[in-house]
Amino acid sequence: MEKMDAAVQRYDNYFLLQTNDVIDYVKVKTNLFEKNEKLTCDEIGDGNLNYVFHVRSLENEQSVIVKQAGHTARISDDFKLSTNRIKIESEALKMGGQYAPGLVPEVFLYDGIMNCCIMEDLSDHTILREALLKHKTFPRFSDDITTYMVNTLLQTSDVVMDHKDKKELVKSYMNPELCEITEDLVYTEPFNDYNNRNELYKPNEEWIMEQIYNDKELHLEVAKLKFEFMTNAQALIHGDLHTGSVFVTDKSTKVIDPEFAFYGPMGYDVGNVVANLIFAWANGVANGKDHFVLWVEKTIVDVINLFKEKFTMSWKQHATDPMADTAGFKEWYLEEVLSDAAGVTGMELTRRIVGLAKVKDITSITGEKERTWAERTCLVAAKTYIKKRNQLRTGEDFLSILKYAIASVK
Amino acid sequence: MEKMDAAVQRYDNYFLLQTNDVIDYVKVKTNLFEKNEKLTCDEIGDGNLNYVFHVRSLENEQSVIVKQAGHTARISDDFKLSTNRIKIESEALKMGGQYAPGLVPEVFLYDGIMNCCIMEDLSDHTILREALLKHKTFPRFSDDITTYMVNTLLQTSDVVMDHKDKKELVKSYMNPELCEITEDLVYTEPFNDYNNRNELYKPNEEWIMEQIYNDKELHLEVAKLKFEFMTNAQALIHGDLHTGSVFVTDKSTKVIDPEFAFYGPMGYDVGNVVANLIFAWANGVANGKDHFVLWVEKTIVDVINLFKEKFTMSWKQHATDPMADTAGFKEWYLEEVLSDAAGVTGMELTRRIVGLAKVKDITSITGEKERTWAERTCLVAAKTYIKKRNQLRTGEDFLSILKYAIASVK
Repeated sequence: MEKMDAAVQRYDNYFLLQTNDVIDYVKVKTNLFEKNEKLTCDEIGDGNLNYVFHVRSLENEQSVIVKQAGHTARISDDFKLSTNRIKIESEALKMGGQYAPGLVPEVFLYDGIMNCCIMEDLSDHTILREALLKHKTFPRFSDDITTYMVNTLLQTSDVVMDHKDKKELVKSYMNPELCEITEDLVYTEPFNDYNNRNELYKPNEEWIMEQIYNDKELHLEVAKLKFEFMTNAQALIHGDLHTGSVFVTDKSTKVIDPEFAFYGPMGYDVGNVVANLIFAWANGVANGKDHFVLWVEKTIVDVINLFKEKFTMSWKQHATDPMADTAGFKEWYLEEVLSDAAGVTGMELTRRIVGLAKVKDITSITGEKERTWAERTCLVAAKTYIKKRNQLRTGEDFLSILKYAIASVK
Repeated sequence: MEKMDAAVQRYDNYFLLQTNDVIDYVKVKTNLFEKNEKLTCDEIGDGNLNYVFHVRSLENEQSVIVKQAGHTARISDDFKLSTNRIKIESEALKMGGQYAPGLVPEVFLYDGIMNCCIMEDLSDHTILREALLKHKTFPRFSDDITTYMVNTLLQTSDVVMDHKDKKELVKSYMNPELCEITEDLVYTEPFNDYNNRNELYKPNEEWIMEQIYNDKELHLEVAKLKFEFMTNAQALIHGDLHTGSVFVTDKSTKVIDPEFAFYGPMGYDVGNVVANLIFAWANGVANGKDHFVLWVEKTIVDVINLFKEKFTMSWKQHATDPMADTAGFKEWYLEEVLSDAAGVTGMELTRRIVGLAKVKDITSITGEKERTWAERTCLVAAKTYIKKRNQLRTGEDFLSILKYAIASVK
């Protein structure tokens, strides 16, 4: 008993876990393993912010993930960050499990002192971006990701939720530091290199200066979208729903890493999904993978159309606000979400090519001609998504922008 | 010393102050009066929610107001309300004093245990609505109220404020219960009598059912405005800026009672000011007060035009967001605020005639013909403000809706 207390007390004050602490930590904090069970632990994190440990039994199939937030980002001690992000991630995953069962990893424990989350191990899954880089296709993806988005977004909005409860969630998911990262990296720097940390691909340097830095009409639309992002407390969004935040197998889709979650515009998640599919598409085209390219195109169309269909169904089933069933309102609301989604598609496309955080889908294209083409095509599409966002109403409309971009870029 | 401690301890646990407690309370809690100074106290509250005491010296001119929030509304024990509202009011008044010096009463003390605010006594001022009912004019009003609005709204927005600091304010001014009152009384019930508590003026009963309850196009616009109110965390708004929330003399304007304050659309405050001027206008017309009517018309025009002018100036001086000086953005942003203001003008006009909380400007019109006319004219204007809100860009545009309404109602 005394020994047990000492073990528990060991985690009464925060410290950064080392690989060899983690085995004890999961045994003390959960009942997932036997006291004497032989476990092994590896640090597997490759993200920028947190430490991620993979703990598995040497005696059976049981395994878990332990994710810990430090007071600075994993990539740099200079980058101070509140550990609140692990609380937000843990709670958003729990809510995700509630609204979209089976589409997020299970959370076994959130520890607010050690700033740890112990969660389901998904190492039988692959990161979607990595799989797409190998030009693999995932027939379940469009169906699963639209279920995830419609359920988590609509159910946390004022359309469905009690308005007072929703306001409490707005408060508890306030996420100033991670929102600031998005405000800077997505909504500001790609258009003006405000913090001098853009990295342009040399062969496209002049073209980008001309087409992105000098397009004043574009900047005006970006400013509008930025303030929309900062003020529209519409739904609890994932906030970083790119293909690196999705784990897949042929039979399963799991959304991970909602540490950027906060109350923002629904279209932010939808646009991130579409933009990151477009990066996969550009990679496929550059590598001549016709079958893959066709699948991605169909998936883009399906993501929008299934989102619309499920959103409409779910609204009919779950809406509670007495004004929400006013004739025409659902359609208007959905159009606003699609406009935002189109705008964000353009923002994500731009920031991942022009800004600090690149995507491998583009940077891994080896031929200069092919990469130059891929970047320009994505950026022409980006500008069009942003400027014409109020006109895109179907999956086919979204896809047509890519066809236009292909025709525009030599 | 012991006696002093006992005195202080007396207020260590919350209780509802009675008139004879208040004199001791202000002596213990402030240095505004001498220990032996003879004071007198009266309960003067006539609002719905709080207890308001007027404490004054019998020996000199010194006086203060003590406002206390109960756990239920003053008007009914059945109406449970968080005492958080007095915290919000006290802090919003302090911020108002910081951004719009001289235009709000000074706060001497906020007491989070007793849920009291001790503030400047304005009994040399008159409630603006009462003065307008006497058809008095206030040449300073349009200038002062636009300074108040521009300063408090723009300075608390993402245009000017550090975005992380702003998010902390959004959190601390979260005001679920009072927002719910507005969501119900302003944005829902006037259009469908959802809670069966509308009270229609008999001679207009059928007309209102036809013109308000049955206008589906109107309901669609109302639904959009409702969701805008619930999701647009644009600025720290007053939230209840009618002519009963303004104290005036010929030389002074003081905005009081910001207990509905929260982060919402700027246009909500502007629209409330305009709508309540329109009630004064309708009362003036019904009573044949031509000089007064002309002054109100000029004031409506001035409120919009001065707001625009000062907003533009202040933006140029104070904007900090790096995207905020994008060409055309300021103009777009201001147009959005004016659209909201026009929409809210229509909402406030409607809810104060159709909904639970009437205004004296209208209910005090004694002739049946005159009151019938006044209500219909305000409601025709209301519908037009709501439906045409994207087209109203100047004070003259706002006034033209009244001329149209006069021409439409026999």
